[in-house]
Amino acid sequence: MTLTVDLNADMGESFGPWGMGDDAALLGVVSSANIACGFHAGDWDTMATTMKLAVQNDVGIGAHPGFPDLQGFGRRRMHVPLDSLANLVRYQFGAAQTMARVNGGAVRHLKLHGALANMAAEDKAMALACYRAALEVDPDIIIMVLAGTQQNAAAAELGCRTACEIFADRAYNDDATLVDRSLSGSVIHDPERAGQRMLEMVRAGAIITESGAHIPTRIDTICLHGDTPTAVQIARSVRGTLESNGVTVTRFSGERL
Amino acid sequence: MTLTVDLNADMGESFGPWGMGDDAALLGVVSSANIACGFHAGDWDTMATTMKLAVQNDVGIGAHPGFPDLQGFGRRRMHVPLDSLANLVRYQFGAAQTMARVNGGAVRHLKLHGALANMAAEDKAMALACYRAALEVDPDIIIMVLAGTQQNAAAAELGCRTACEIFADRAYNDDATLVDRSLSGSVIHDPERAGQRMLEMVRAGAIITESGAHIPTRIDTICLHGDTPTAVQIARSVRGTLESNGVTVTRFSGERL
Amino acid sequence: MTLTVDLNADMGESFGPWGMGDDAALLGVVSSANIACGFHAGDWDTMATTMKLAVQNDVGIGAHPGFPDLQGFGRRRMHVPLDSLANLVRYQFGAAQTMARVNGGAVRHLKLHGALANMAAEDKAMALACYRAALEVDPDIIIMVLAGTQQNAAAAELGCRTACEIFADRAYNDDATLVDRSLSGSVIHDPERAGQRMLEMVRAGAIITESGAHIPTRIDTICLHGDTPTAVQIARSVRGTLESNGVTVTRFSGERL
Amino acid sequence: MTLTVDLNADMGESFGPWGMGDDAALLGVVSSANIACGFHAGDWDTMATTMKLAVQNDVGIGAHPGFPDLQGFGRRRMHVPLDSLANLVRYQFGAAQTMARVNGGAVRHLKLHGALANMAAEDKAMALACYRAALEVDPDIIIMVLAGTQQNAAAAELGCRTACEIFADRAYNDDATLVDRSLSGSVIHDPERAGQRMLEMVRAGAIITESGAHIPTRIDTICLHGDTPTAVQIARSVRGTLESNGVTVTRFSGERL
Repeated sequence: MTLTVDLNADMGESFGPWGMGDDAALLGVVSSANIACGFHAGDWDTMATTMKLAVQNDVGIGAHPGFPDLQGFGRRRMHVPLDSLANLVRYQFGAAQTMARVNGGAVRHLKLHGALANMAAEDKAMALACYRAALEVDPDIIIMVLAGTQQNAAAAELGCRTACEIFADRAYNDDATLVDRSLSGSVIHDPERAGQRMLEMVRAGAIITESGAHIPTRIDTICLHGDTPTAVQIARSVRGTLESNGVTVTRFSGERL
Repeated sequence: MTLTVDLNADMGESFGPWGMGDDAALLGVVSSANIACGFHAGDWDTMATTMKLAVQNDVGIGAHPGFPDLQGFGRRRMHVPLDSLANLVRYQFGAAQTMARVNGGAVRHLKLHGALANMAAEDKAMALACYRAALEVDPDIIIMVLAGTQQNAAAAELGCRTACEIFADRAYNDDATLVDRSLSGSVIHDPERAGQRMLEMVRAGAIITESGAHIPTRIDTICLHGDTPTAVQIARSVRGTLESNGVTVTRFSGERL
Repeated sequence: MTLTVDLNADMGESFGPWGMGDDAALLGVVSSANIACGFHAGDWDTMATTMKLAVQNDVGIGAHPGFPDLQGFGRRRMHVPLDSLANLVRYQFGAAQTMARVNGGAVRHLKLHGALANMAAEDKAMALACYRAALEVDPDIIIMVLAGTQQNAAAAELGCRTACEIFADRAYNDDATLVDRSLSGSVIHDPERAGQRMLEMVRAGAIITESGAHIPTRIDTICLHGDTPTAVQIARSVRGTLESNGVTVTRFSGERL
Repeated sequence: MTLTVDLNADMGESFGPWGMGDDAALLGVVSSANIACGFHAGDWDTMATTMKLAVQNDVGIGAHPGFPDLQGFGRRRMHVPLDSLANLVRYQFGAAQTMARVNGGAVRHLKLHGALANMAAEDKAMALACYRAALEVDPDIIIMVLAGTQQNAAAAELGCRTACEIFADRAYNDDATLVDRSLSGSVIHDPERAGQRMLEMVRAGAIITESGAHIPTRIDTICLHGDTPTAVQIARSVRGTLESNGVTVTRFSGERL
């Protein structure tokens, strides 16, 4: 049996005159793109351009909703009531569907951005509110979740199509949380090492923590970053290492948990 | 043959903590609602609430896109390139479609707001850009146009489903433009007079100008305002006068021009 | 010796086309106004108008900075790094100083708004960051603090000019926090009772809690609301009760704690 | 007598996570910086950082107000009533003064940005409204104007301190307007040629047009760009050519016209 895995990255994070990331380079590496929807990044023009590029590169399109916080890039925790959060997800998802469609594509998955994602990874009620809202908009949408978190638990409870994600460049604690960025070794900067780690985890079907412990999990997709030159190198290294070891990089199928 | 006409009004123009207009009162008068899409007014929560109310009152839902200008309420002219304008219309229309659908409705028509509408009424290229963008999103959408303007001409050129609109409370010049607000008599404040005027124009199938001239036009819908107590009175008076004179108030069918 | 107390209320909370509160009515009741600075409410035009009205009514002007969150009216908790928070306070305070000055006034005090205020009431480091930023802008600024909170403690630590505030329409717990809004009796709706309570507290020089306990505190100012008709009645009742019982309503002097 | 001239550039145009321009490089070349004030670019943190850098480099600080239009970077024409425009200038200028002061500097000049500048260059009433608002905030502020335009005429009428500006990298028509960007030769890309041109104009005390005509004007400052690598080269070439030919680069004195 051939092992397969998807590679995903955030894209379309420019805004107005300001560029961000090397989307063109990443689109040659990933199989799925998480496209900002205008609230934390990605205005209507950026969305259109990015959707079109994703279609041209045959990369799967994801809606990537975030908090309404441009200056903080959606990375600041905000306390939004759950019903308002649901509307916020629906609005951004709806806009993304249309922008994808008029550019020849379709939104295939949804992934929460930044602080919204972090909060939903800790708080199942919040994850449920966001995912239920997304499923009302499209019951077939594939929800991309952080493996081993409350996001994962919420998707399992909903029985929706799901893609479980691990990070290429972040070290894990034994409870499947990420090692705090302030600690040494928390971020992997060596492209080769990042590639080897991912190969091991995909083969093991488990998150491998800093202590060497294995936390079994479905691994459907690997999150790559593209905002630094090193990040693009890591992305390429991960893809190269996987493929040269017989792992096929292809879009996740979105099986239910 | 029975005369019929639609009555429309702008709604969902609250934002965050700030209310605007008496949507509840108007929903008992109009047959179509133009609902703000978050750029000049109407955030994601307001949109959800307003869509739900429109569905409950069996009022036709319209997307009402405007310029990205909250402080100016979309009433300040902005010079946006046509391709960006098209994306701006698609984004707002897409968000509106989803918000309507998850609240049990569907977007049936689209009407431009404020300065965007005024500029498109004078500039056919701009109207064409906006309407083409809307028709890409939904080829069956009914475009609501200001009768006798370049909006009207653009819809005719596109051959799309159309609803031609006249104003209940504004006086007309002989070229079908509105009498400037700074001139006396430009705005009709008397509910009874507004009702009589509309009855005459609907019966005549023509805009009747201040000079008494008739400009033949299809009249599919009458634009009402709801932001003042008088405005709601005018709305009720127009509906009352029309109905008591045998004109049926019902949604426009959206026939092509 | 005559008892004196200041009455304060939030103002200038309109934005663009949207009005909020009855500033004209409140300006006849209060001695100090907390004027929104454009981030959670109050654009450049609203600020100018409100500053001018405050000067005309001889009401003390306060800068009222909040989170950059229009849709949530600054009432949603946001987690902003302290150095960014300091810049946010400086920016809003600076704009307010200029808008006050060109309209014939001067900013005399500063009060944090909404969730920013609530968070600073619990977190002294956050209060210190905001107040230090304000004092860099103007070392003589009077910091308005919620009596008995970490805001109060921060102002005491800084030794800055201070005005201690209690609420006219909110019940207190025995630890000087406010009774949760979800509990019955948490909000006082009866104008007469609100007036009597304030008179008792001012005379006692203490917060009187729901259990009847007294928490001694300097009381320099009473916070009134103006966003509902009842709120304006409460405001008038508080002033009337105080004055008819020999308490003079006048601006706080801003003595150091 | 030694010829002197100032060199200025726009700076602080980053926003939140998005960078723009090479401020560090430019600060080594220019004598004056026009710093964005948060409306078209430059949030509260960016402003603080840029002000501090300008002070460290002993570069004169200018407030650079623009339209409230992040997505369009203040480059889209907006039609704002003059009294609102005045408030918009006051608010941004006030915030800039405070941000400069707490970072050890002071705002010395004011220059309009983007579409606001272009409109004011054509419309003296608009220029007058903006400049009067700025002079109310600080009667000693130096107004930087585009030489030969209605901005220039407005500053002359007001008799305020003024700095007249020419462009290093743009060709001029015989009426002192800029050659349209769509025409060949309108933008100078050759660093050496840009330097020679500026030297000639400064020595001639005149704008030299494409046809070779001389339009006499006071030249106090030369506008440089820094948003491309070439732009920084042009900036350095202009400074080098001026200095090696005996022109001293120093801040403008702001003499009245």
